[in-house]
Amino acid sequence: MARIDSREVEREKLAILRVLGSASNCLGSQVISRRLRDEYGVELCERAVRYHLGLLDEQGLTSKVSRRSGRSITAAGLDELSNALVTDKVGFVSDKIELLAYQSTFDVDRQAGLIPVNISFFKSSQFTDALKAMAPVYKAGICVSDRIAIAESGGTLGGLQVPDGYIGLATVCSIVINGTLLKAGIPMDSRFGGTLQYRQNRPWRFCDLIHYSGSSLDPSEIFIASRMTTVADTARRGAGKILANFREVPAMSLPLVRDLIKRLEKASIRGIVAVGESGKPVCEVPVGLNKAGLVLTGGLNPVAAAAEAGIAIRNRAMSGLMEFRSLHSFWDVTKQLS
Amino acid sequence: MARIDSREVEREKLAILRVLGSASNCLGSQVISRRLRDEYGVELCERAVRYHLGLLDEQGLTSKVSRRSGRSITAAGLDELSNALVTDKVGFVSDKIELLAYQSTFDVDRQAGLIPVNISFFKSSQFTDALKAMAPVYKAGICVSDRIAIAESGGTLGGLQVPDGYIGLATVCSIVINGTLLKAGIPMDSRFGGTLQYRQNRPWRFCDLIHYSGSSLDPSEIFIASRMTTVADTARRGAGKILANFREVPAMSLPLVRDLIKRLEKASIRGIVAVGESGKPVCEVPVGLNKAGLVLTGGLNPVAAAAEAGIAIRNRAMSGLMEFRSLHSFWDVTKQLS
Repeated sequence: MARIDSREVEREKLAILRVLGSASNCLGSQVISRRLRDEYGVELCERAVRYHLGLLDEQGLTSKVSRRSGRSITAAGLDELSNALVTDKVGFVSDKIELLAYQSTFDVDRQAGLIPVNISFFKSSQFTDALKAMAPVYKAGICVSDRIAIAESGGTLGGLQVPDGYIGLATVCSIVINGTLLKAGIPMDSRFGGTLQYRQNRPWRFCDLIHYSGSSLDPSEIFIASRMTTVADTARRGAGKILANFREVPAMSLPLVRDLIKRLEKASIRGIVAVGESGKPVCEVPVGLNKAGLVLTGGLNPVAAAAEAGIAIRNRAMSGLMEFRSLHSFWDVTKQLS
Repeated sequence: MARIDSREVEREKLAILRVLGSASNCLGSQVISRRLRDEYGVELCERAVRYHLGLLDEQGLTSKVSRRSGRSITAAGLDELSNALVTDKVGFVSDKIELLAYQSTFDVDRQAGLIPVNISFFKSSQFTDALKAMAPVYKAGICVSDRIAIAESGGTLGGLQVPDGYIGLATVCSIVINGTLLKAGIPMDSRFGGTLQYRQNRPWRFCDLIHYSGSSLDPSEIFIASRMTTVADTARRGAGKILANFREVPAMSLPLVRDLIKRLEKASIRGIVAVGESGKPVCEVPVGLNKAGLVLTGGLNPVAAAAEAGIAIRNRAMSGLMEFRSLHSFWDVTKQLS
């Protein structure tokens, strides 16, 4: 029993760190208790939160900011957050996809609402080169949408602070398609992320893949960091490997899926590379009986092209949500910058 | 039906490419037919092999070497081999582990037999620096064994040719432990590869992990390429992240496992970091009822330290088998080189 209890305590401690980690300013125990309940479904009274905060302070994971016991997370606390409880993190990628799809409020027809985004940080000095590397990829349409947002250091983007000396870029994440289908009552099974090989400007086959349910890491971030993509080549000559992912939907929902795809295109969201038929393989990936496969482009493809050009990037795939109307066309944004 | 047939043909074609890809010289249809049966369990008569070879020649994937129709694989053929049929490749890592464990003939007590190895290629000009980066890791014992083999360009190592301008290094792979346990009748479930965090010189917890059954890529190679390890730090100050992997064995086999571990140590194989108790978590990873967890060091840890030092490396984890007696202590080899 002691073992289970200590694991429970560990989880509560981490939930508090998560609340503090995602807050932009310091928080008191009352606010923490409320957010734990609203955002994580963890019931912990103010007094229990104060007890935990005392322990966290001792471990150097949080620090007192004011006399009224407002707390903020320390660098050690952020570190703990990213390393702790790996078994909670596994399946983390699939959980994150599900959560973001659920939280997305994007309305295809109104073209408004919260949309899932990836955030990437570039060194300010390299940002112009990065935009140059990304332009051909956006031109070739190897992206979920050409809508982006940019924030200078000190600003925030999708709830994340842009570090000193960096520029933040938000790109639309393919989970917007999960969200849109979910709102229309279509359950979507997110199976894996992989590299998709093109030839003669057409998607051909998956080359490598990592299942979302068996990984604590986002496959796109791995493929970018391991330099396994040739997105720039694909944009230039129609042959190469891009980031893509594989979803399954019930085959009988296909007419509705096709209708939604058309409506998404009107909102400038074109992340769907291929739609399979009932029970038939797509891009050489077999699907279950009465299921149909969907191949989606990775939202980070333009960013992958910048990485291929040797530009250092810190990626946070599936990092949060932003209002669709706060995003602007890549072309308008770059015109303004130049 | 046509669809199934074409998939079957594709598989046969790839099996032939695999035979040619692993051969060091060109092969005739008779030898190919025999190797297909012996090494891949594929029954294909000489005539069928010749038919396939004709098609492969047309596609530029193989080429005729002599009049007597000896074939060798082309660069395009090797490319095809690494990209084709991703769905066959998934679960590939777990399959490869199983295959190598089965093929291993290492005898703990005789300290002889075939042992699974990883092969890494270093630029010749950087090899001395690489050895310098690896030495502290071997000294700290963060490896499966200190036995290694080195081959200059033009030579072969575990069946792989060392490319021009490169030096090849063979390190002992942790699958030797699967093989040894398997020979003793203990079934081993290889669950995942991950990064294992150390503190105060002791293994603490897994930080990130990728299941072998859900990935077409070897987790160790990913973690090295994505620079997610701090092996050098761990060797120096006992805190950091190393490559490790997680296995499960039946709890009732633990006495025999402990005995084998001791005998392996006598043969200078020390890859086991932690052994759990029945049903109890190890390094924060829970195990099934009546199961025990084993945490093994990754054989590529010394190589990861070289990568951390900025040295470019081409890794082929779990690449093949070598005779244990053809390997020599890292310290003897480096003494000879200096």
